[in-house]
Amino acid sequence: MIKAGIVGITGYAGVELFRILTKHPEVEIAVVGSQSSTGEKLGTFYPHLSNFDISSVNTDPNELAKTCDVIFTATPHGGASAPYIEPAKKLGKKIIDLSADFRLTNLAVYEEWYKEKNHCPDIAKEAVYGLPELHKDNIKKAWLVANPGCYTTASILANYPLLHYGLIEEDSIIVDAKSGVSGAGRKIKQNLHYSEMEGGISAYSIASHRHTPEIEQELSIAAGKEIKITFTPHLTPMIRGILATSYSTAKKEVDLSKIVEMYKDFYKDSPFVRIAEGYLPCTKFTSGTNYIDISVNFDRRTRRMVVVSSLDNMIKGASGQAVQNMNLMFGLEETLGLDFIALYP
Amino acid sequence: MIKAGIVGITGYAGVELFRILTKHPEVEIAVVGSQSSTGEKLGTFYPHLSNFDISSVNTDPNELAKTCDVIFTATPHGGASAPYIEPAKKLGKKIIDLSADFRLTNLAVYEEWYKEKNHCPDIAKEAVYGLPELHKDNIKKAWLVANPGCYTTASILANYPLLHYGLIEEDSIIVDAKSGVSGAGRKIKQNLHYSEMEGGISAYSIASHRHTPEIEQELSIAAGKEIKITFTPHLTPMIRGILATSYSTAKKEVDLSKIVEMYKDFYKDSPFVRIAEGYLPCTKFTSGTNYIDISVNFDRRTRRMVVVSSLDNMIKGASGQAVQNMNLMFGLEETLGLDFIALYP
Amino acid sequence: MIKAGIVGITGYAGVELFRILTKHPEVEIAVVGSQSSTGEKLGTFYPHLSNFDISSVNTDPNELAKTCDVIFTATPHGGASAPYIEPAKKLGKKIIDLSADFRLTNLAVYEEWYKEKNHCPDIAKEAVYGLPELHKDNIKKAWLVANPGCYTTASILANYPLLHYGLIEEDSIIVDAKSGVSGAGRKIKQNLHYSEMEGGISAYSIASHRHTPEIEQELSIAAGKEIKITFTPHLTPMIRGILATSYSTAKKEVDLSKIVEMYKDFYKDSPFVRIAEGYLPCTKFTSGTNYIDISVNFDRRTRRMVVVSSLDNMIKGASGQAVQNMNLMFGLEETLGLDFIALYP
Amino acid sequence: MIKAGIVGITGYAGVELFRILTKHPEVEIAVVGSQSSTGEKLGTFYPHLSNFDISSVNTDPNELAKTCDVIFTATPHGGASAPYIEPAKKLGKKIIDLSADFRLTNLAVYEEWYKEKNHCPDIAKEAVYGLPELHKDNIKKAWLVANPGCYTTASILANYPLLHYGLIEEDSIIVDAKSGVSGAGRKIKQNLHYSEMEGGISAYSIASHRHTPEIEQELSIAAGKEIKITFTPHLTPMIRGILATSYSTAKKEVDLSKIVEMYKDFYKDSPFVRIAEGYLPCTKFTSGTNYIDISVNFDRRTRRMVVVSSLDNMIKGASGQAVQNMNLMFGLEETLGLDFIALYP
Repeated sequence: MIKAGIVGITGYAGVELFRILTKHPEVEIAVVGSQSSTGEKLGTFYPHLSNFDISSVNTDPNELAKTCDVIFTATPHGGASAPYIEPAKKLGKKIIDLSADFRLTNLAVYEEWYKEKNHCPDIAKEAVYGLPELHKDNIKKAWLVANPGCYTTASILANYPLLHYGLIEEDSIIVDAKSGVSGAGRKIKQNLHYSEMEGGISAYSIASHRHTPEIEQELSIAAGKEIKITFTPHLTPMIRGILATSYSTAKKEVDLSKIVEMYKDFYKDSPFVRIAEGYLPCTKFTSGTNYIDISVNFDRRTRRMVVVSSLDNMIKGASGQAVQNMNLMFGLEETLGLDFIALYP
Repeated sequence: MIKAGIVGITGYAGVELFRILTKHPEVEIAVVGSQSSTGEKLGTFYPHLSNFDISSVNTDPNELAKTCDVIFTATPHGGASAPYIEPAKKLGKKIIDLSADFRLTNLAVYEEWYKEKNHCPDIAKEAVYGLPELHKDNIKKAWLVANPGCYTTASILANYPLLHYGLIEEDSIIVDAKSGVSGAGRKIKQNLHYSEMEGGISAYSIASHRHTPEIEQELSIAAGKEIKITFTPHLTPMIRGILATSYSTAKKEVDLSKIVEMYKDFYKDSPFVRIAEGYLPCTKFTSGTNYIDISVNFDRRTRRMVVVSSLDNMIKGASGQAVQNMNLMFGLEETLGLDFIALYP
Repeated sequence: MIKAGIVGITGYAGVELFRILTKHPEVEIAVVGSQSSTGEKLGTFYPHLSNFDISSVNTDPNELAKTCDVIFTATPHGGASAPYIEPAKKLGKKIIDLSADFRLTNLAVYEEWYKEKNHCPDIAKEAVYGLPELHKDNIKKAWLVANPGCYTTASILANYPLLHYGLIEEDSIIVDAKSGVSGAGRKIKQNLHYSEMEGGISAYSIASHRHTPEIEQELSIAAGKEIKITFTPHLTPMIRGILATSYSTAKKEVDLSKIVEMYKDFYKDSPFVRIAEGYLPCTKFTSGTNYIDISVNFDRRTRRMVVVSSLDNMIKGASGQAVQNMNLMFGLEETLGLDFIALYP
Repeated sequence: MIKAGIVGITGYAGVELFRILTKHPEVEIAVVGSQSSTGEKLGTFYPHLSNFDISSVNTDPNELAKTCDVIFTATPHGGASAPYIEPAKKLGKKIIDLSADFRLTNLAVYEEWYKEKNHCPDIAKEAVYGLPELHKDNIKKAWLVANPGCYTTASILANYPLLHYGLIEEDSIIVDAKSGVSGAGRKIKQNLHYSEMEGGISAYSIASHRHTPEIEQELSIAAGKEIKITFTPHLTPMIRGILATSYSTAKKEVDLSKIVEMYKDFYKDSPFVRIAEGYLPCTKFTSGTNYIDISVNFDRRTRRMVVVSSLDNMIKGASGQAVQNMNLMFGLEETLGLDFIALYP
C-alpha cells in the first residue's frame, strides 16, 4: 500500500483527494494536514465526513516525508507547498503539487503573471507538468509533479491535436471557458455568496487569468513555436464542471470526419479522453468522473474549428488528475481507483 | 460473480443501478433491459455512458430468469414487473422489485391507494419489505424483495425508534418531506420543465401521496398497533436528496441525550444510519451515498420531537438500497460496493 | 410627494425598498443611508444600480428626521434603529422599522429570545405591529410601525382564520417553513457560500428561531388565549420565497369548501391575499410580488388541516409590506406602487 | 389608451408581454389569444395570474384587427403570424411580430436557414427590423416591425460600434453566447427536464443557429460590406438572461478608454444601453429589466477586443423590446412602462 499524505484537507481539492484516495485499492491515507483546522475531526469542517474518526494534523514537513510515500500539496500558490519539497526529495519521496508553483517552466513567465518570484527556482526545473495525456513517460519517472490547473486541462487537450497536426493558424486560438463555482474555492467572498451567484453568469479576469500562460506553454510545444491565445473564464451558476469552447481558424477547408479520426488516434492511449460523437459535451456527462469529453466541430462558413470540451474541475481538473499522476509515478494502472461513472442526473 | 439483470435501464433508478452494479466487486451485469429503447446503445439515451459498448435488450422474462441470478425490476407500479416474477421463482432466482407493487402487505390498502387490484396477489405474500435496518433477517432469506419508496425510507427510519421505545403519542406523527426533482422520474412534464421548476418550492399530493400507507405499515409495527400519519411531500429545486422533518408529541418531558443514545443503540447494526451530532442533516451531506443522516431534536416548549432525516433518493431511497438488499440476499457484506463518500461540494 | 429615507441601503431589504420606492408614484427617495459604505455610489456595491447617480450618506438622525416624511430603518436588530426614533417622533415624522426591535409587545419575551434588553422599552409600546391584514386601522394611525419578519407573515396569515373561527385545537399548530437564501441576508457565511448551499436543503434553528414568538403573539390574539407553536425553518436552494406548510388538528370533521369560504371572507378586504384554488402555492407564483398565496387543505384520515402559504420574503416578507404600511400610514391606496405581477418564469 | 392584442399568451414571450403591458400607462390589453388554450382563464395555465379574470380567446384575425390598435404576435416562426398581417394592414393597424418570419430582409437567406420559403414574401419587404438602437427612425414610421431574436440583440449591439468605427477586422467576429433556459421556450423536452438541465452547461446548434444570419445582416450594415461571424449558443443552468462574449481582432493597437468613449457616444440616445465601467456584466444585473449592459475590453497580448454584453432574454431580448418598439411606433416616450430596476438578488 502506498502511504499518502494530504496537505490542505479543508480546501475542496483536499477533500476531493480524500474522497478518491479513501477508495483507492493501493493507497492508505497516512496523514491529512491542515493549518487552519489543526487537530479537528474531519466532521467538524465537513459534516459529510463525520463518520470518519480522523483528525487533521499540523503537518511537519520532515515528519510527513518520513511517514508518506507520496505527498499531495493542495495548497495555495505562492510558496505554501515549498516547505514540503526538500524533505521529500531528500528521502526519495514523491510530491504531487496541486498549486500553480511548479507549472510554468519559464520562471520569468511565472513572475510576470504571479507578480512575485518563484519560491523554489532550483527545484522548479525538476518538476514535470502533470498532464498524463501529453507527458506520460516523464510523469512515470518524476518525483515532483506539477498538477495542471482546471481550465488548463480542458483547454490544452481540446486544442493540442489541431496544432500537433498543423491544421490551424497557430495564433488564432480563443478559449471561452465556463466554470462551476467550486473552481473558485472554499473561501467565502461576496460574489460567491449564494444569493449573488445563483441565477447569473459573468466573465471575469478578461485577458488576465493566470491559467493563460500554462495553456500557452503546452500549446506552444504542440505548435513547435511560441504562441499566444485569448482566454476568457466565466463563473457559471453550477457547482462542478468546466465547459471550454475553443475557436481557431483552419488553414484550409477540412474534412471533419478525418479530424475526428486524428483526435481519436492522438488520444488512443488516453483512457480518460472521450471523443464525443452523436452528442455535444455537457458538464453533467463528466460530473463525478475523471473523463474529459471532446467534441470537434467545423464552421464551414467561417472556416473555423469549434472544439467543445468538458470535465469535472474537481476531478480531471484537480484531484482526479493528481491521482492519475500518482498511479503513473508508482507504476500502477493509470485508471486505478478512478474509473467513476458520472453521478447522473 | 452474481449475474444481475436490470429491467428499466432508461429510468433514473435503472441507470443508477447500472452505475452502482458496474463497480460492485461481486456482480456482473448480464442484461440491461428496456422496452422503450430496445436495441439501443446506452450512450444513445444517456450520453454519459457512451463509453460503454452495451445495448439494451427487450428482456424476455424466461430468458432473463435463465441468464441472471438476480433481477432488478426498476419498472413503474401497476404490474410491469409481474411477468418477471414467476419465471424467476420457478428457476430459484431472486427478484428485487423497485416498483410499489409488493410493498403493501395488506392488499386492500394497496387497492385503496393505487385504485386497482394488485396484479400478483398470491405472490405478494411472499415478498419481504426491503428495509434492511428493520427486516435484515427476513431479507437474507427472501427470494422476492419489495424495495421501499424514497420518501418511505427517510420517514420510517426517522420515527421508528420513537414508537419502538414508546416515547411518543402514536397518532401524533406528521412528516413534512422535501424531495429533489429526480424523485419525480425521467418522464417530461410541464411542472418539471427547468424554467418552471427552478427557483421554486411547492407542496403536492397533500394527504394523498402513495408512500403514506407504506410509512404507516412499518410504523404500525413499531407502535404495536395501527397508526395513521400526516405526510406532505414537496418538490424542491435540487436534483437529488430527500429531507424529511418529522414532528410528534412526546408522552412526557424527555432527556434528549438519552433519546439520542436510544437511536444509536437501535441502529447499532445498521452501517448506513448516521445519527447526526454537532450538525443538522443537509441533503448534500448524503448526496451520492447510501447513508441516511438522522438528527433528533426536542422542542421543550411544545413537548414535540422534531426529527430531521436526509438521504439520497436515488441511492438509499432506491438503487443503493436495492443493492444493499441484494448483498443481504446473497450473504455478502451489507456494505459491499456501497461505501460511497458524498460528492461534496 | 412623500419624502422617504432608507437607512441600510446595502442590505437586501434596503436595496429592495429602493427598487420599490423609486417607482412609487407618491414617493421621492430623499436619502439613502449606509454606515458601511458611506459616500459610495450605489453602483459601487450594487452594479445593477450603476445608472443611478446617487450616493449613500452617513445618516445623521436629526438631519434625516428633518429631511424625510418617513424613514425606513432596514437595520439589524438590537438597537441599530434606535437613534432614528426619537428625532423622528419629535418632528412628527413616521418610522417603519424593518428590524425585530419593536415587533414583540411583551418585552420580557423579547429579552428571552434576543438575550438582551430592548433598547427603547418606552417607545416600544407605541409601535404598531405592521401586518396590514390584521391591524389595518392601527397602522393607519401609527407613527411607528414594526414591520413583521418574513417567516412571520407567511405563518400568521396562513393560520389566523383557523383560530379566529375556532376550528382547530389551539396548541396543535406546527409550521414547517422553507425559505430562499436571501432571507439570510447579504453578509457572507460559509454555509451560504454558493458551492455549499446549492443543491441542498437543511433545517436550522430548530425550536429556537426568533420569529417564533412573533407568530405566537399574533396567533394568540386570534385564539383569544396564549398559545405556543412549533416552528422549523429550512434553508432552500433558491434565492427568493418562503413556503410555509402549517399543520393543525381540526376540532371536528370539517367541510373544506366552507373553510375556504371563511378564508375568503376573512381576507375580503386584503388585496394581497390570494386564496389558491385549483393550484397549490409555489414560491415562483408570488416571486417579485406583494402577494401571499394561501391554500387550505384537510387530511381527513388524521383530521388535520394542512395550510400551505407562499410569499416573496423580500417583498411581502419585508420591503413590500413596509411600503404597504407606508401607504396606509399616509392615507394612500393600500396597493399603490405594489401591484406587481410575478416575474415568471 | 392604445388597445393591444397579444397572440400566443401561453408562451413565455406572450405572458411576459402581458406582464409588461398590464402596467403600461398608455396601454389597455384588449385581447389575449391562444390556439392551444382557447377559452381558458389565464390562471389555468399560469397560476401566478389566477387573480386576473381574463380568458384567452381563439383570435380571429379580422376581429383582432378591428379591436386592436397594435397586435403582438408571439407565435412560432413559419407562418403562424401570417394570417394577422393583412387584416391589420388593411385597417391601418400596427403589428409587432416576435417570430423570425420578417427579420431577414434577404428572403434567400431566410430560405437557406429556415429550410422553407417565407410565407409572406411581399409583405416582408415592408417590415422594419425592430432594434431601436439602430433603426429608431424607421421604427417610428413602421406599421410592421420584426422584433429581433434574443441572442441577436446581445450580439449586434455589442459589436456594432467596433465595425461602425472601423476598429476591427471585419471577418474576425466570434460570438460565444450563454443563454438561460427560458430562451428555449415553454414546450417540454427531455434536455430541458429539470433533472437533466440543472447543474450542467452545454453548447448546441454549433455553426447552425438561426440567429446567425440576423446578426450578420445587421453587422454587415455596420461594416458596409457583407460579413460572416461564428456564433455558438450555450444552454446555461439559469432561467433568464443572455451573456454574450464577443471576440474580434483589432486592426491596430488600441486605446481602450477611447473606444469606451466611442461606445458611449454611439449609444448616447439609447436609454437602455449601459456601458459597464467598474464592473463586468452579469445576467443578474439586467434580470427583470430592459437594459443591455456592455463591457468593452482589450486583450493587448493578442490584439483582440473582448466585448461582454448581458440582457434579459425575455425583456430586452423579446417582450420588453417589443414594447419599446410599440412606444416608438406610437410616438410615446421610448422608455414608457419599461424603466424596471433589476430584481436583485
